[in-house]
Amino acid sequence: MAPQHPEGAAPAPRSPGAGGPAAPKGDRPVDGDVLAAYLRERSTEFLRALRAHRESGGGAPEESAEAVRALRRSARRISGTLHTFRPLLDTEWAEGLRPELAWLSGTLAHEHAHASRLERLLLALHRLSGAVPVPAAAGVGAREERARGNGAYAPAGPDRTNLTVGAAKAGALLDRRLTLARTRAHSTALEALGSGRFHAVADRIALLAGEVPLSPAAAGADLRLPAAAAEERLTDAVAALPLLTAGHPYNAAALVHGLAPDTSPQPQDAPWHQVRLLLRLHRYAREVLTGAPAETRLEAADQALTRHRDAAEAAAAAAEAARTPRIAPATAYALGVLHADQRHEVEAARFAFHHLWHRLPR
Amino acid sequence: MAPQHPEGAAPAPRSPGAGGPAAPKGDRPVDGDVLAAYLRERSTEFLRALRAHRESGGGAPEESAEAVRALRRSARRISGTLHTFRPLLDTEWAEGLRPELAWLSGTLAHEHAHASRLERLLLALHRLSGAVPVPAAAGVGAREERARGNGAYAPAGPDRTNLTVGAAKAGALLDRRLTLARTRAHSTALEALGSGRFHAVADRIALLAGEVPLSPAAAGADLRLPAAAAEERLTDAVAALPLLTAGHPYNAAALVHGLAPDTSPQPQDAPWHQVRLLLRLHRYAREVLTGAPAETRLEAADQALTRHRDAAEAAAAAAEAARTPRIAPATAYALGVLHADQRHEVEAARFAFHHLWHRLPR
Repeated sequence: MAPQHPEGAAPAPRSPGAGGPAAPKGDRPVDGDVLAAYLRERSTEFLRALRAHRESGGGAPEESAEAVRALRRSARRISGTLHTFRPLLDTEWAEGLRPELAWLSGTLAHEHAHASRLERLLLALHRLSGAVPVPAAAGVGAREERARGNGAYAPAGPDRTNLTVGAAKAGALLDRRLTLARTRAHSTALEALGSGRFHAVADRIALLAGEVPLSPAAAGADLRLPAAAAEERLTDAVAALPLLTAGHPYNAAALVHGLAPDTSPQPQDAPWHQVRLLLRLHRYAREVLTGAPAETRLEAADQALTRHRDAAEAAAAAAEAARTPRIAPATAYALGVLHADQRHEVEAARFAFHHLWHRLPR
Repeated sequence: MAPQHPEGAAPAPRSPGAGGPAAPKGDRPVDGDVLAAYLRERSTEFLRALRAHRESGGGAPEESAEAVRALRRSARRISGTLHTFRPLLDTEWAEGLRPELAWLSGTLAHEHAHASRLERLLLALHRLSGAVPVPAAAGVGAREERARGNGAYAPAGPDRTNLTVGAAKAGALLDRRLTLARTRAHSTALEALGSGRFHAVADRIALLAGEVPLSPAAAGADLRLPAAAAEERLTDAVAALPLLTAGHPYNAAALVHGLAPDTSPQPQDAPWHQVRLLLRLHRYAREVLTGAPAETRLEAADQALTRHRDAAEAAAAAAEAARTPRIAPATAYALGVLHADQRHEVEAARFAFHHLWHRLPR
């Protein structure tokens, strides 16, 4: 899976109903039962992923990683649904479960984030060196190898000789730093999955797979109202974005402050990250309502904002690496080029989002 | 004058005739007499600029610089016209004069090029530091001061404190290097203007202001044929450009090879530089034919390609400065960010040219 599209190839979280894919809202009920069915299905998926993770037993990294991804996917959707439709759910129960799900998906996300950040940065270094890019899959494989090994830098493929000293040293430095961070995140995730706190979450999800604690208000409630409110929160947040600038190609806005004293995180990125979270909530609410995966355009807009976040974090990682004491000037120079390159990716992602947003059906 | 638009605010090289501005070709003769009149006018301008330069006597830098710009402007137009319309001119005479004009305008261009490159790089450093940009005019003034002083780095304006150590050191390094190069270019230009070689050129231009040596073929010749050939050479060269890529925003093509071993000059820039020269020839041929300054769109396309060249050379200057021995990593990092920023300016200029080209009347 390419790091720019962490959910791009994700399987549909729910099969379309008998009514066909993405049945319009009017054709199916939109009451508490639909909400309960959605939460039960996501909970069942969560438990299935948990079983798959236990069966992989740490011996099959690919399967284990896939199981963790599935756990995160279900946890995000349950958490988002609890938030958007909270008037229809038992308040105390929902408010108790949400922070636990946030803790879980946050903890589980770090390992993948460090791995895909390193992937993104090394691919960019290869591109900037004019080398043939390492195929993403091969690159991930090579990095998996190294993550299990001693983390020494050994760029894969026939393009090693095309790297300048600076690019190669920058790659080695980033590899050391991010592989270390990834290894730590892996341990933390394993610890979390073995903790009493996690077992308590899993028990609550197991209960949810059987019976969803609806509030008295759920009887006869219309899911479309809270879903519309979620969409409105998104629309308001998007309206506050500098979309006019973002729609003008090569506006150079993302690299302003690129050399400012407080480089990371960049304050200008925060409203975009917030829109990404609100878009996710809207997307999951659409899934609940339509009983089908979100529209392709909504998914594409989500991907643009994920690319925005990934590039912003990669740029910050390059800037942080450049503050390592006693690095060679050539290494620092390469990291500066890389930082600016990723900030331009940030700008490109905003440009892409601008176009996708205006094409979204509303 | 902003460095991106070295000819943007230039006065019209020729007043429109009595027929009004940009009279269509059909309304005026297009024979050897028109060519001779154009060359006489440019020669008169050349001699006027030369007189202004001598009168400024090195005591008034602004006036002296303006006179040099006017000398270059006339020399470029005479040289281009000799090239495009060579079948209508005395061959031996034209082929003898052209290399001398090329030598002259090349020699005179360097001082301005170093000054505007420094201007561009320091403005970019301020922008990248999130500082309020120094107004271009004030910046040039400050730099003029420094060029006459000891070249020490003293950023003007209230934004000095916003520069990080790396950006400030990178600025100081670039200032030292480019001010030195500029001072040398200034001496070389002064030497050239006092040389016997220059006096020989000036004598020939003085003769040209009186009598243009036309070839026997000029009688009854149609200027539109050689002008069309110049346009065709331009069109062919543009057709060979990667315009499809350039028209796709954020294609990241200009920074490919940004960290490759042979960074400057970048081979991918050469066809664009060539198109810039051919566009100039086409533009001057249009001036000859229409008796008026080139159309705004043609001038805008020319400016986009000049911005392309300026950004490419600024990026190369940042990369070269980063190879200075014993610089601090923070300096090298800032130069890396600056290099990538200017390569994105290169990409933005290609994007702009793509749009302008497709809007040109043909």
